[in-house]
Amino acid sequence: MNPYPKITLVGAGPGDTDLISLKGLRALSRANVVLYDALVNEELLNHAPQDALRIFVGKRANKHAYSQQEINKLMVSYARSHEHVVRLKGGDPFVFGRGGEELEYAAKHHIETSVVPGISSSIALAGLQGIPLTYRGISESFWVITGATTAGVISNDIYAAAKTSATVVILMGLNKLAEIVRVYEAEGRHKLPIAVIQNGSLPNEKIALGTMETIVERAGILGIGAPAVIVIGEVVAKHDSFEAWKHKYIAV
Amino acid sequence: MNPYPKITLVGAGPGDTDLISLKGLRALSRANVVLYDALVNEELLNHAPQDALRIFVGKRANKHAYSQQEINKLMVSYARSHEHVVRLKGGDPFVFGRGGEELEYAAKHHIETSVVPGISSSIALAGLQGIPLTYRGISESFWVITGATTAGVISNDIYAAAKTSATVVILMGLNKLAEIVRVYEAEGRHKLPIAVIQNGSLPNEKIALGTMETIVERAGILGIGAPAVIVIGEVVAKHDSFEAWKHKYIAV
Repeated sequence: MNPYPKITLVGAGPGDTDLISLKGLRALSRANVVLYDALVNEELLNHAPQDALRIFVGKRANKHAYSQQEINKLMVSYARSHEHVVRLKGGDPFVFGRGGEELEYAAKHHIETSVVPGISSSIALAGLQGIPLTYRGISESFWVITGATTAGVISNDIYAAAKTSATVVILMGLNKLAEIVRVYEAEGRHKLPIAVIQNGSLPNEKIALGTMETIVERAGILGIGAPAVIVIGEVVAKHDSFEAWKHKYIAV
Repeated sequence: MNPYPKITLVGAGPGDTDLISLKGLRALSRANVVLYDALVNEELLNHAPQDALRIFVGKRANKHAYSQQEINKLMVSYARSHEHVVRLKGGDPFVFGRGGEELEYAAKHHIETSVVPGISSSIALAGLQGIPLTYRGISESFWVITGATTAGVISNDIYAAAKTSATVVILMGLNKLAEIVRVYEAEGRHKLPIAVIQNGSLPNEKIALGTMETIVERAGILGIGAPAVIVIGEVVAKHDSFEAWKHKYIAV
């Protein structure tokens, strides 16, 4: 039983290992145990001490997936046995990361916690593509919504968002793309620009650009797969290739 | 006339100098000129080469404020005369940062640009206070809105947001706090939790917690000033001190 158990939730950023913060890196270099998720770039683990335990707790095909309850328990029991646990999460710990549940569980077990925010893919991946989430005169806000609700259905927030002029960013929504498009089309917004970005910030990054009418086909042609971020709004037309692509696509 | 003019938009993060990314720091260490905003922590400038020019282009009381057009021109003319300009912006360059306008202006002048995302205060400051923007069963989304629209009035998006269950984050909205509260109260949401965080991530950080009915008074008692982030939604009740504060406040 270690007398100073401690858990640090660290946001690893969107994928590029250089997009972790200095503070996140420092926490990692002082870890006795790292519990990391599927969307974390594994190269970051090189920054943990050589003798630190590195435990994958994410969800991946053909591997045992830990439940949130199992992760919570691991976190607390390793803090008690090994002292400093870094819970390394893709993006920011509180953007659909269940960081809130982990903080609560640790507090209930009287374990000291701290938080190191991360660069969230919800904001960064559009920006890296030159798509500004906000733009004077075009968009005064952006709305980040999960595509994967607990109930497995499309979030009611997407229906509400389709009625507004907010830029909308949907995480984990690629397999709901056609359904999302139908929500917008039901609002008469067939011409609204939309982008789907796969593996953002990584060397194998891909983007599909289109309007509601064309994006499903376009993403299919380009073979866009998960993990992907969907960006919806007039600001998407600010992408360098948007106009060029539009002309080309319409000419075909 | 430099043959390789280049502009890098860098997100400096929310204030704590250790919340800049490795990539942002590297860009800074290779800058010939740094153009920085008011919300950037000036200690970050120590990471630029000693002979780099450091030019403040932000808005502060009693100082000359540069217009966006002036900043655009400075950026391009320094890239041409000095080569690598780092445009260092608080938080992330595209969250109400006019990064989009700067990218466009540079492109129009055929200057190469790149982007280094930052940790946005819109996400990070709630998290550092232990307020999760999303939480299973409570909030499936968060909506980030500016309190300072070009027109100077409260954004229509705030009216729309008050009708939804999204967590709402308002930047640069402190002087509109009473008005924002009225929008929510008009929707009958008097008991909705709300937090106002000043100087988030810095040693002089302060937070006011309350409900729509109490927050204006509470923020006043605590002397909360700008810069501040407003966080609205049931998730605010997850803050460690929320329940304790509520009992105390009601007892008085």
